[in-house]
This record gives sequence, structure tokens and C-alpha cells, in this order.
Amino acid sequence: MELPNRLTLIILSRFLLAHNVHSGKRSVYSTWTNPPSLRHFPHTIFANSVAHTTLGGGDKPEPKRIYIYDNALHGFSALLSKDELQALRKSPGFISAYADDIATPDTTHSYEFLSLNAATGIWPTSQYGKDVIIGVVDTGIWPKSPSFNDDGMTEIPAKWKGICQEARYFNTKLRAENPDFPITVNSARDTDGHGTHVASTAAGNFVDNVSFFDYAPGTARGVAPRARLAVYKVLWSGGAPSDILAGIDQAVVDGVDVLSISLSNRNTNLYENPLAIASFGAREKGILVSLSAGNRGPSFATLRSGIPGAVVVASGAVDRWFAGTLTMENGKMITRWSTFPAKVAVRNLPLIYNETLSACNSTELLAEAPDDSIIICDVTIENGSFPFLMQDLPESNVRAAIIIADDLSIFRSTSFPHPGVVITPAEAQEVINYMSSNSAPRVTIDFQETVLGTKPTALSDDSSRGLARSYQGILKPDILAQGVCFLAAYNPYNSGPRIGKNIFLSTDYDLLSGTSVACPHISGVAALLKAAHPEWSPAAIQSAMMTTANPLDNTKKPIREVDNTLATPLGIGSGLVDPNRALDPGLIYDASQQDLVNLVCSMNFTREQTQTITRSNYNFLTPSSELNYPSFIAIYNFQQNGMTLTQRFRRTVTNVGEGVATYKVTIEVPENTTIRIQPETLVFGKKYEKQNYLLTIRYRVYSDSGFRYGLINWVEATGKYLVRSPIMVTSGVEEDS
Amino acid sequence: MELPNRLTLIILSRFLLAHNVHSGKRSVYSTWTNPPSLRHFPHTIFANSVAHTTLGGGDKPEPKRIYIYDNALHGFSALLSKDELQALRKSPGFISAYADDIATPDTTHSYEFLSLNAATGIWPTSQYGKDVIIGVVDTGIWPKSPSFNDDGMTEIPAKWKGICQEARYFNTKLRAENPDFPITVNSARDTDGHGTHVASTAAGNFVDNVSFFDYAPGTARGVAPRARLAVYKVLWSGGAPSDILAGIDQAVVDGVDVLSISLSNRNTNLYENPLAIASFGAREKGILVSLSAGNRGPSFATLRSGIPGAVVVASGAVDRWFAGTLTMENGKMITRWSTFPAKVAVRNLPLIYNETLSACNSTELLAEAPDDSIIICDVTIENGSFPFLMQDLPESNVRAAIIIADDLSIFRSTSFPHPGVVITPAEAQEVINYMSSNSAPRVTIDFQETVLGTKPTALSDDSSRGLARSYQGILKPDILAQGVCFLAAYNPYNSGPRIGKNIFLSTDYDLLSGTSVACPHISGVAALLKAAHPEWSPAAIQSAMMTTANPLDNTKKPIREVDNTLATPLGIGSGLVDPNRALDPGLIYDASQQDLVNLVCSMNFTREQTQTITRSNYNFLTPSSELNYPSFIAIYNFQQNGMTLTQRFRRTVTNVGEGVATYKVTIEVPENTTIRIQPETLVFGKKYEKQNYLLTIRYRVYSDSGFRYGLINWVEATGKYLVRSPIMVTSGVEEDS
Repeated sequence: MELPNRLTLIILSRFLLAHNVHSGKRSVYSTWTNPPSLRHFPHTIFANSVAHTTLGGGDKPEPKRIYIYDNALHGFSALLSKDELQALRKSPGFISAYADDIATPDTTHSYEFLSLNAATGIWPTSQYGKDVIIGVVDTGIWPKSPSFNDDGMTEIPAKWKGICQEARYFNTKLRAENPDFPITVNSARDTDGHGTHVASTAAGNFVDNVSFFDYAPGTARGVAPRARLAVYKVLWSGGAPSDILAGIDQAVVDGVDVLSISLSNRNTNLYENPLAIASFGAREKGILVSLSAGNRGPSFATLRSGIPGAVVVASGAVDRWFAGTLTMENGKMITRWSTFPAKVAVRNLPLIYNETLSACNSTELLAEAPDDSIIICDVTIENGSFPFLMQDLPESNVRAAIIIADDLSIFRSTSFPHPGVVITPAEAQEVINYMSSNSAPRVTIDFQETVLGTKPTALSDDSSRGLARSYQGILKPDILAQGVCFLAAYNPYNSGPRIGKNIFLSTDYDLLSGTSVACPHISGVAALLKAAHPEWSPAAIQSAMMTTANPLDNTKKPIREVDNTLATPLGIGSGLVDPNRALDPGLIYDASQQDLVNLVCSMNFTREQTQTITRSNYNFLTPSSELNYPSFIAIYNFQQNGMTLTQRFRRTVTNVGEGVATYKVTIEVPENTTIRIQPETLVFGKKYEKQNYLLTIRYRVYSDSGFRYGLINWVEATGKYLVRSPIMVTSGVEEDS
Repeated sequence: MELPNRLTLIILSRFLLAHNVHSGKRSVYSTWTNPPSLRHFPHTIFANSVAHTTLGGGDKPEPKRIYIYDNALHGFSALLSKDELQALRKSPGFISAYADDIATPDTTHSYEFLSLNAATGIWPTSQYGKDVIIGVVDTGIWPKSPSFNDDGMTEIPAKWKGICQEARYFNTKLRAENPDFPITVNSARDTDGHGTHVASTAAGNFVDNVSFFDYAPGTARGVAPRARLAVYKVLWSGGAPSDILAGIDQAVVDGVDVLSISLSNRNTNLYENPLAIASFGAREKGILVSLSAGNRGPSFATLRSGIPGAVVVASGAVDRWFAGTLTMENGKMITRWSTFPAKVAVRNLPLIYNETLSACNSTELLAEAPDDSIIICDVTIENGSFPFLMQDLPESNVRAAIIIADDLSIFRSTSFPHPGVVITPAEAQEVINYMSSNSAPRVTIDFQETVLGTKPTALSDDSSRGLARSYQGILKPDILAQGVCFLAAYNPYNSGPRIGKNIFLSTDYDLLSGTSVACPHISGVAALLKAAHPEWSPAAIQSAMMTTANPLDNTKKPIREVDNTLATPLGIGSGLVDPNRALDPGLIYDASQQDLVNLVCSMNFTREQTQTITRSNYNFLTPSSELNYPSFIAIYNFQQNGMTLTQRFRRTVTNVGEGVATYKVTIEVPENTTIRIQPETLVFGKKYEKQNYLLTIRYRVYSDSGFRYGLINWVEATGKYLVRSPIMVTSGVEEDS
């Protein structure tokens, strides 16, 4: 999602922070405390009067308390000067304090496809996620959307209200630091559209006859259409961690079952990452947290949500395109990418292609094209970019453009302010052949076409890739869901696609792309699983989704990158979620909260850093990096070049199939690696019986990052179950300073 | 309708004609002959080979015969040099020859309302016009329109085919004179949309859920939805009379019942006017001809279709508006004119109004307005015009405009390439008051609103007004039908409304205005009457529509002009058509073809001129200006200033009610006039009995045009019937030279 306003705010906010510190003014710090002292703690620092002040002018001399957190975490956030912070650090019960940073939503642009159906599988079994509560932490909700019309499907009159008396909103920190911040509607109303899109993707009701300007026409539906929504608006133009923490904390109080958080923070240490901290707290209460991986791909180690206690979701394409068809007078037709959002008459117009004009990179150049022509623009060479082209075209007298592009990201752009179709260089050759055989070539272009069954369904270019710099011992992202040009509810009051130079269309359903879109798909599947298996822990639900995920695309070949190279588990995690298979996974890798604490304790954090994440009521004496996780990662560093390393992973699997079962392992071994599983057969006598196994991996260290990966398949003897885990061998990266 | 291409062609065509004459090249002449010699006639002039040549290169030395007409008229058209024409004039059987002139369709921009319903009245009685054939002479037809989908309603699979094996097209003259004329589709396919709009208005089938970009949403239907259509494409970019005559001639052969001709010629003598000549011939075959009055109003004597033998139709508004609503932050709302054709997000944006900027009359000026603001533009003073404003706005960074206008024609414009609402100066005061009380005024505008029940339903400003210069003895126009912003089928392949600088939207249903739109409403009503009363002559059908027409608007007051002054019969004829009342008019004024001949014979034409209209098989010895017509006009000229004149009108009415009936006359006397009716009571003993009456009008001559008018009402004793005729007293005008 393009958020120029938010970007402005981020910069502004950084400036304010810096400015505040230098001038001795106050900044917001989130502060972690030991729970016993929590209620009294602020009083030991602040004057009584101050402690009860909720908000005031930012220039007043008193420190300001903004939030007290007591659920997802223990602590508070306050507007403090440096001196006040120093005083606070010395106070009893103090653990840590961090300056507030800004989180941004993870959407750029989207597709769809889960084999959900009314006849069989997870939908009827889970009663469509009936009454499971999905908490959405985002930009709020547009309650009037037909996707949130209950239509008699639940007993709650307004679906979006969920268990809250009303949707909740959190901007105390934002307004404390910037009292003049323009908040048009001080409520949970979604003035953007992002939160509405996310919420309807997870749990929107069935709505017939929706489309994005006739693209993707059909029935909209969320993954869990009978789940309930609890909405926490924490993003205004950007979101402050203090406000986000307050939203998540409230969601925990409200008893949500699943938390859907399509946000990512900048790359910080886990103990400074509010999403990591809140995820840990939420999971403690039995809440599955689904987090977007971020849209910073395709480079290695661009993932910023490497949080062990959450399901981190990557984004992939679906088998659907949006297109325009250009028809040449010789009858040849090319159907390729466009989402131009209007029905237009572009028929039988002269086609213009010459080397100078085809740069199409300035208003002046485009002015030289004949009026009412169709121009061919070449963005495959360094003479222009698609965004600039789309900026200039509406100011020209050209009626439409045929854009030759080799940048695959253009083939999912939804920015078409002027009629245009993007074609490949190979397709362009056909057009050029036609032109060379015709002295007055003419072309017709039809828009608003939706092409189904397109292949292959690749990993999104911009989906953030592991490693996770925050913690490299767990393979992240965990799983892949659809996140390219996905149609879901939107706020029609907000500006939708631009047409012409300055006309902003309005739409009730918008196409968005990114891991923000993928994340609520996983939230929805988790809600279905929770409804079908109310006894399952968050770890069990996560395991069920991961071990049944599909590493193959819709051509039955390993999922690829958009450039046709193979995707790795660092891009797709365990693969594409398969909700119907997740319903009945055979085995699960369960993990308790103490297991997560043991993992955090193994991370070489200080006690304060550890407790910032875990709080104090755990045993900190059994550190272990061996979280019982349904995926494997082995790291080396370049200094070990030439060495052969060995790493062991102990895992425990629980039989959630019915009764007796025997599983045998098969291994797809990563290159130059040996893998040993002990035992190679697991025999279960009854349901819920646990069995252990040991995986030993011996791998060579290379001087490059060399992405080597494989799979472990536990195959049930009758063939009913296949429990799959990816293994990744790669070099580590320096953690962020 | 804006037809820039046609306009270009008209000029070009005139030039070609002139050029041809001066250079001794050939031009097309339509030639009238006595019928006995018709088949042989061309041979006496042309070489045999030439006579059989249908068409060839325009530069060949042989004279070219283009059409032979033998039905609506007798004659032929040919490409002749001046010498050849001279030779032709001396030939036996020659009557007259006229150079081809160009006709244009009568549409500019529309509304709807006839009390047609399935329960009672003319629709069920006429079976919706079942199997009556309406011939549409226009730009052809877009056969794929859902309005022409039979949907089982008739036995003819493709409704538009009517009685023809296929729709017919006529461009032989056009191509003879201009072999390079670009004809994209050489068939009756409507490459424009005008003919499709006309045809569907007269006889389109029921189609649900149509709209013009969400304006006027609802079910489209023609006036006679079960009538059949015979289509004659004669307009390409402009229409040549030779081609139009060929179309009408074929329609007569094809046996149409009603001819719908939304065309008008330039102001020529009746004997040079192909529509007058063809109408006479069609009427002879029992065909009712409905003609548009033209869109040259509101000035006196701008009507160019003053044809006695046709029903000439004026255009009026309906009780419907299209609107945008602007909402100020103080809650005040103004809903006024807009047809901006897209759903846009124009919410809570800064409102800009200052004297300099409000001129809005240049791109440079508009560039000074803040980005993303809503600007107030004043077109009530001489600083800009609406069309130029709408040209410049899409190139600005202004998000929307509020346009203050006192020119009422702007309140029916459908040209909104940029978001804009047109408000009145009085409404503007409210906005200015709001701005003066608010330092940062903001406004929201919602579009795509349809307002029903608007009042009053005025005569269109641009509907051509009588007198008819071609013949002043019959009051024209005859009747009023809706013709403002009327929604009917259109060709979606043609460019619809523009949005932005150069994006041309496509639409299956378009809003058009003008007498072109009014005309097919009367064609449709005539078809319903023909189906209900197959025995009625064209004169009877015309009389039934005229004597039951309503001179009152939807406020029950006399129909007004858009400037709120009273409209006169020179604008509205007998008033607004009332189909249900026309079904059972009580009395009719019938007239035979000989009566029309007698009228033509009274017009002081030469014998040749007379026979050009009437042909030869009539008695020319009983000239009479007293056509038995259901309206009255008394003319004076200024030279008679101060005199009192007397004029007598003899009329015969036929009782078409059931059996015995007594009618008494009441008169609304024109100012400074006396009217005497003898007798004042008409007693009928049975159906079809005829009675005569004499109307004597004594009126003073003034030195001005003074529009004085009244009504004669024949009121049936039980009150069941009211047979109304307008009386107009006015000065004559010089006939065109």
C-alpha cells in the first residue's frame, strides 16, 4: 500500500523524537516493569496528579503517562524527559525502557485461491469459523461495508463489533507527542481502508456481485466468514508502538482467539520489538498471532518479523490475472496485464511506435504523439519507468498505451490512471511484426478482463525473506498465503485508484497486494482450525498449518520466484497453506509457553531484556534453543569456511489422528549435506500419544550464502497423512546493531 | 449530440459540391419524374451502359445514376455535370432537380415520463404495440444491445431486423461523391449510437438494471416494447438527401407502419425538402411519419420541418434530475446538477473561492489553486464558459469544482470530464455564507444521484419554434414529448462521455437530449395506437395524439419555458403527448391524401414544384388551405398594422367514441381576439358519424410578433372526452429565399 501521508509522518515523528531529546523536551518511552509493582510503579516516579493525568498539552512540564499495559505485557508508556527517564531507570521494578518507534502496515498491491467449499473439508467442519474471535490490529474498520453485514449469520448484530461493545481505537501516544495531529474521525472508523481489507479477508461475510471496476467479479468472502471480529485501530498515519501495544493488550483482555497483525516494525531486537513482546504475551493466553512478513523482498534477510511465538506469513500469487486485450487488424490478439478501472472506447485507433517516442518519459515527448493514437512505450530499456509513464500519460492526447516491460513487478501494478496494457518483450515482437506489415496499423484494446487458471503461482517478489535478523535459530517466514492483487472490502470514502490527472475513484472493494493481505488469510485459517479443534494450542494450530502446507505450485512443481528461479524456505516457509489438509494433519509439533521462555533464555539477552519479553513468572533456568518447531534451519558463518558442521534437533510429535498409526520418514536431502533421523519409524498406539525423534544434520560451510534446503516427510503407512517440514542450510547474517 | 466529425464532413461536403459545380465536375442531383416514364427515363439521358452502372470512380466521365425512387416518391438521383443537368431539364417527364444537401440528426443532450403501465391503458390494450413496424431512418442500429434482445416477446428472433431480412443501409451517394469517405463498417451497424438510441426509445425491449454510470438507474424500455423495428441507416457522418430518400423509399416498400425520422434539413422550400416529399409519399401508403422539430430554439421561426403531412415533435423536460450533493461542515447540503460519470472520493477537502481564481478560465489560473482543493467557479459573469471550464479542469490539480451558473442550459449538460456540481447563484450564497463563517472551510461532494419529481417540466430551450418558414398555414410543431437527458441504448464501441483529459468512457446506455429523442417517443405512441386501432389513418392517429395532449406541466399549470415565461403553441404545439388518453380521444380530425394535395395546390407553387411533392395521380383542381387539422393558426403581417382581420376554418370531426355523444365547445380566447364557433354543440347519433363546425376568428394586427393564443375545447356531455385544439395568432415571417 502506498502511504505517502504515513511516510511523511514517520519522518516528522523521527524529527520530533530527535528534537525532543536535544531540547530536553519529553519523548514517549515504553517501560517494562515487574508485575507486582505495576499499579503503584508510576506513582513512585510521577507526582500523584501526573499519574492520573491521561493527556494534556505536549509542552507542559509534567511527565505524562499514556498507557498502562497489564495483559499482553506488563508496563506502561509515558512521555518523559531524559532526566525523568534516568530517574525511572533507577526505580525498583524497572526492567527496560525504549523510545517509541513507528510501525507501518504491510501492503503494496494482489490474487486468491484456497480450496474452501461448502460441501466438504474445513468450512462445514468448522461451521465457517463460527464464533471464533479474530482480533484485527490495524487502521480500524469501515463498518458499513456489506462484508460486515451479518445477514443473520451470527447472533451479534454488527459483526465487526465482535466481543467489544464497540471497535476500539488507540492514539493516546500519537496525540500526546503531536497534539495537532489531524485525526479526522477519533474513533475506530477506518479512514484508510487497509484494516477493512484485512478484516474482510479474514472474516468478511459472503457478498455477491462485487468487483474492482469489473475486474475479479464474483462473490467476496473471508476465509472464516462466520468468525467474529474484534477491531483495534492503532494505525492513523503510521502507528506508534505504544498505541499498538495498547491495542494488543486490550485484545488479550477481550479474549480474542486469533490476532491478525498486518504490520511490521523496523528491524530491532526482539526485546525492543513491541510485536514480539505482545505476541509472546498473547500466546501465553492461548492466542494465535499471525504476522505479516513484510514487503521488503526479494533480498535475503529482509524479514523484520522474525518472532518465534507468531506465525510469520509470506505472500504469493494466485492463478488469476487482470488484463486488457489488444486486437490487431490482422486478427491477432494479445491479452496481458491491466487494471485500468473504467470501461472505455479504445477502438480501431492508429498505433504509433518509433524509437524516440517510445521512451514515453516526459510530457513533452508524449505531446509529439498524434492525438487519439495508441502509443507503444518501452520501459524495458533505461528510458523511463512505469510510474512516471503513468504520471505523464493522462496529460497527453494519446488515447492509450501499450507498455513493453520486462520488470515483472509491473505485471501486478494496479496503477493505471490512463488506459494501458503491459506486455512482455516477446509479445511486443508480434505487435512490431504487425506494424511492419501494415502502413496504417490500427489497434483495439478491451479492458476489464479477468483471466483465471494462470500459471505458475509464484512467490511475491516483495515478500520479505529470511533470515530473520532478530533471531536466526528459527526458520522464518513460516508459511505462504495469497497476497497479490487480492479483492476485499475497502473504505469507499477514501481515495481509490486514480484516473486521469487528478480524479480519485472510490471503491467498496479494492485490490491490494502484500504480506498484509497474506497474513489475514492465515488468521482466517487459524480461526477455522480453532473452531474445529477448540482444544488445540496456538503451537498446534501453527504446526497443523505448516506441516500440511504445499511446497508445490499449481503446475505441481516446486514454488518459484517470479523470475522463474526456485523459491527457498527462506521465501515460502513450509509452503502454501492448505486449510483442508490442516484440519487433519496427523501429527503436530506442540510447544508450551515455557518452551518459548527456554528459547528466549538461550538468546544471550540480559535478564532485563529477557523479562521484557517473557515477564517474570517463568523458570529462566532451562535455556534451550530447541523449540519444538515444525521446521529446521542450520546456520554457518563464513569464518567456518571449509569446515563440516553438525547440528542436532530434538523434536516431539503428537498423534492427533484417530488411534493407531505408523509413520516412516523420507528425506529430500539438501545439497552437500547428510541428514540422519532417529528413529526412522514412529509408531503410535493411540490418539494424543507423543513420540520423539532426533534429526542430525552434517553440512559443509561455504564462502557464500548458498541456499541449500530439503524436506523431511513423515509419511503415514496408509498414505493418509504426510507431515512435512522444510530444512534450510545457509549462512547467518550479522544481527542489527 | 455533439458530432464534430459530421460537422467537418458537412463543411467538406459543401465544399465538394461547390467545387464540383465550378470545375464542371459532376454533382448529385435528385430528380423528380412523372411515373409513367420513370423506368425508361434514365435511358433517354444516359447511355444504356451508364444506366445500369450502380457506382464507380467519381472521376469517370459518365454520368452516374445513384438511386431510383419509386415508392415514397418517383425519381432518381444521379451524379451529373451542369450540362447533363441542362439536357435532363429539357427531357420529357422531367419535373425538377435539386442539388443534394446534408441532413443532420436532431439530438443535443435528457429525462423520462409517460404514464405507461402494464395494468391499464394503452400498453395492455395495444399489446405493447405488438407487431406494428416502426421504421427508423438514422445512423443504423447496434444489434447487440440488450434493448433489441427479443427475449421471447416476439416471433422474430432478432427484433431489430423487423420485416427486413437484415437492416438496410444507404450510402451510394456519399460514396459516389467521395469515394474515399471512410466507412469503417459498410453495413447498417450503428457506428455512432444515435440510431440505436432512437430505435430503443421507440421500441426497445425491457432491460433491467441499466443506467448511465449509476445515474437514472432502473429498467429501460421503449414506448412500444413489442413493436418491431425496420432499420434504415442513411446517416454516416451527416446524411445525403439522396441516401435518406432511398432509405425512406425502401421503408415504404417494406411496409412499415410508422416512420421515425429524427433528422432535419436546412430550411428549404417544401418541394426541395426530401423529408417533406418522402413524408407525403409515405403518408399516401398509410404510414405515419414522426419528425423531430430540430434543436434551433428558442427563437421564433427556427423550425425547419414545417411539413403538413408529418407529426412534428418538440422536446421537453421530464420530472427527473441528475445531481451531486455538496455537504458543508456545518451540515448544510446543496443537491444540484451533475452527471460526472464515476464514483469518486471527494471528501472533506478545502474549499477555495476568491475573485481571481473563480474565473477558472485558463489552465494557468487553475494551476494557482491549491492541490487537492475544491474550487468555486463562477460562470455567471463574463469570465469563462462552462465548456472551456470543463476543458481546463482535468488538467488542473483541483479535485472538484462547484460551478455557479445562471445559464439554465448548463443544468442539463452531460459534459463532466472532471468532478463538478453546477449550482444556482442563490445556492452559491449559502456556500459563500458558510465560507465567511469558517476560516478553513471544507466540503464533501457525492455524485451519481438521481432526483425524481422535479418541477416544472418545461419546454426545452433548444427545441425549434414555429412558425415553419416552409409553410405557415399549419401550426407547427404539433406535439411535445420528453427529450431532455433521456436514457436509452447506445453503441458501447463508440466514445461515450469523456473523463479526465483524454479518457473516453464507453456506455451501453447513454443520456441524450433534443427533439431527436422526443420524436421516437411519438413514433412509439403512434405504434401503440396503430396496434390498438389498426383501422385508423395516419391523420386519425395524429389527431388522437394532438387533441388529447396536455398543455399543462406537472404542477398543473400551463407549460413554461425554462426561463419561467409561458410557452406558446409555437413551442409545444398541442402540448405533452398523453398516450393513455390518445387511445380513446372521442373525436378525430381525419384527412385524406387528396386533402393534403389540395393544401399543396394552395401554396402558390408551380405545377412542377407541386408535383415534386404530390406526384401526378391526383386532382390538382381543388386547391384549399383548409386542411382538416386539429390545430389553428392565424397569421398577419406588419403592413396590416391596425387592421382587424377575419379568418374562417372549416373542420370535420369524426366520432370514434362508442355511439351517441354530445359535445359542447368552450373557448379560451386569445388576447384582443374574438372567436365564434358554429355550431357550439355537436350531436353524434352513432360511432364514425361526422359533424362539421366553422371557427371564425377576428383578430387585430399589431406591429410586433405578439404571440396570442388560446384553446378550443370540445367537451363531451358526460365529461368523458375533452377534445382540445390550440389556436395561435401571430405575425408571419418572410419565407426563405
